[in-house]
Amino acid sequence: MKARPKKKLMTRRSALKNLSAITAAAAFPPFHLISAPEENPFTHKAYPPVEGLRKIATEEAFNIPEIAAAIKELFKEGGSNLDNLVLKQIYDPPASALTSTANISPADRDRSTQAMLSKLLDLENTRLADMDANRVDMHLLSLTMPGIQIFEKSKANDLATLANNRLAEVIQRHPARFAGLGSFAPQDVPSAVKEMQRCIQQLKLNGFIVNSHTNNAYLDEEQFWPILEAAEALDRPLYIHPRAPSDGMAAPFRNYRLEGAVWGYGAETATHILRMIFNGVFDRFPNLQVVIGHMGEALPFWLWRLDFMGAPGARAGRKNARKPSEYFQRNITITTSGVEDPLALRYCIEKIGVDRIMWAIDYPYQPTAPAVSFIETAPLSPIERTKIAAGNAERIFRIKV
Amino acid sequence: MKARPKKKLMTRRSALKNLSAITAAAAFPPFHLISAPEENPFTHKAYPPVEGLRKIATEEAFNIPEIAAAIKELFKEGGSNLDNLVLKQIYDPPASALTSTANISPADRDRSTQAMLSKLLDLENTRLADMDANRVDMHLLSLTMPGIQIFEKSKANDLATLANNRLAEVIQRHPARFAGLGSFAPQDVPSAVKEMQRCIQQLKLNGFIVNSHTNNAYLDEEQFWPILEAAEALDRPLYIHPRAPSDGMAAPFRNYRLEGAVWGYGAETATHILRMIFNGVFDRFPNLQVVIGHMGEALPFWLWRLDFMGAPGARAGRKNARKPSEYFQRNITITTSGVEDPLALRYCIEKIGVDRIMWAIDYPYQPTAPAVSFIETAPLSPIERTKIAAGNAERIFRIKV
Repeated sequence: MKARPKKKLMTRRSALKNLSAITAAAAFPPFHLISAPEENPFTHKAYPPVEGLRKIATEEAFNIPEIAAAIKELFKEGGSNLDNLVLKQIYDPPASALTSTANISPADRDRSTQAMLSKLLDLENTRLADMDANRVDMHLLSLTMPGIQIFEKSKANDLATLANNRLAEVIQRHPARFAGLGSFAPQDVPSAVKEMQRCIQQLKLNGFIVNSHTNNAYLDEEQFWPILEAAEALDRPLYIHPRAPSDGMAAPFRNYRLEGAVWGYGAETATHILRMIFNGVFDRFPNLQVVIGHMGEALPFWLWRLDFMGAPGARAGRKNARKPSEYFQRNITITTSGVEDPLALRYCIEKIGVDRIMWAIDYPYQPTAPAVSFIETAPLSPIERTKIAAGNAERIFRIKV
Repeated sequence: MKARPKKKLMTRRSALKNLSAITAAAAFPPFHLISAPEENPFTHKAYPPVEGLRKIATEEAFNIPEIAAAIKELFKEGGSNLDNLVLKQIYDPPASALTSTANISPADRDRSTQAMLSKLLDLENTRLADMDANRVDMHLLSLTMPGIQIFEKSKANDLATLANNRLAEVIQRHPARFAGLGSFAPQDVPSAVKEMQRCIQQLKLNGFIVNSHTNNAYLDEEQFWPILEAAEALDRPLYIHPRAPSDGMAAPFRNYRLEGAVWGYGAETATHILRMIFNGVFDRFPNLQVVIGHMGEALPFWLWRLDFMGAPGARAGRKNARKPSEYFQRNITITTSGVEDPLALRYCIEKIGVDRIMWAIDYPYQPTAPAVSFIETAPLSPIERTKIAAGNAERIFRIKV
């Protein structure tokens, strides 16, 4: 276990001792690194967009008809799974809803959700046209939530294999336009590990995706450690994507449709990451790389308090050997999916460093054009923009240039 | 219901259309408002601390011996209340733990928690000395979590009355050093409303405190609306302080001591606020003022996504008439308790405006000296520092100067 240099990470002690560093923290680029006037956003009101900026979107959802059908079938069994609320809208909408997306107000999430399925199932028509129209070079594809984690073991394994094969095929047909993350069934650990190996060694995929909890269990639990060990050994990142809160935390999210992207996804996924940190998962697997979306599910904003309250040895029962913020320097990378906020992006660059941030659209759940406009026009230095738009994704997901 | 001007609030549309505004968003003070060179933190590396800065700490905990004894008594009944983990450490620690706080590492939250009780019970000795030594003018006192919300109705009412009387007495003895928030028992709504009226009209307190859920119910529920109506009518703010997650969301927080300040408090309290927003509570009570600590429980960081996914009419079952961010301009004020991070503070100033942020220590759970150093030395303009350190608290809590 070796420590990386903690560059740019603001700790309370260093922050309070070093006033110029504090001042720099609010700046862009950091004040003490500004050398040329044209790099100072406060003398130059805006950077021009980079011409021909290469853009790899890193949280782009797809599905296959067989899984869509299996999800629809699962509704017949009922159940209290909080994901069902949105899944039913997507996979089993009322007949009246099966219209085009035209004339749907952006505020009307209910109706726009009902129009998602065709976009999820399409890989080479509408999607490529949308990418072309918006100057998006590549989608890093991943099987959409909740993936195959909701099925019984043998069906889950079969569907994971099918989805991964289908993914590899489309990448092979469009190697410059698509990369992809493999799915596996955490509910069957030995099979999951084998499928993970196949994903990298045979299918040449770029990493893995898991949709938070599996049957209400989280990856910090020892039963799942072989999966984390495999990701580390295969040297590919694991994207921990949201799903609705697990049954044991679901109650307050059952009103007002709080379970989804508006709030439940973030609460669920951040809880998942913190369980991993505080069970010492990143100490046991020091080279494990995890990716989280939605501007890090707001965890970068919590780092000061997490470090203060969650320092090693603070509470009996915690096993983290380092401060939580240190794992954001070594093991965790965030994406901008669903948070097209220049201010939040600037905060994260200053807090965790530009090398730990990747751009994403969250297609088809977010519209492409504003996400592209965000990364093309946000006040970033040319180096920052290039890294966030594509460079970091190429490095972290081993995407061939 | 009248709309306030949405100053400084970054919406996606305005952000993407106005590049100079985006650039300004990362700046301090906002770029377009910089008039004099000495106001620009990027030409002046640091502001000197303001001489004799007036400081009102706004989330400062106390307890009374009768409630401490009642909490200890409650442990005998057992129960799964997730607050019990930390309450037992404070109110019923092992005999070996009852030592001084000397030589306790700041990282050792377990042992420092065990030494909290004497500081909570003291109002005029150690506390005033700590304030004097650290140049703190005033504590806005509030009965510490979980207050009287864990007791049965009649006991809760009696203890609320007792705590409020005790609070009013100490304020009367030290009117320049203490202000205070009144407690009430949400589990008995009619009595709560009466006690709220007494707190303001007779005891001249400055607002109210509630510790998130009461018997697993949240203030968005119609049964509690008379309490919100009373706070609005009495024209005093309601501080919604954390407690551990309610039973219905507790399960994933039962490991690694996730239930407390490290994470559970924030998840619980943010969920509470969002339930209020999405049930339209701030539309029904447009003048209700709510205060939340811990840098707004990270909700300011979520505002872009909350606005996108939670716009009015987005989902059936939601009743918010405005975007979530708009309530942060009209109904919600945050404090800095437990988050002494200049970067997070800068983010919040740019996102929700300096008038909506108040300084806090979170005594005795956080040490005073670093909290004071934070507000004295953070890179703030003189006006920002004055407002956050005391000015906003004087306005919002009607504290006499």
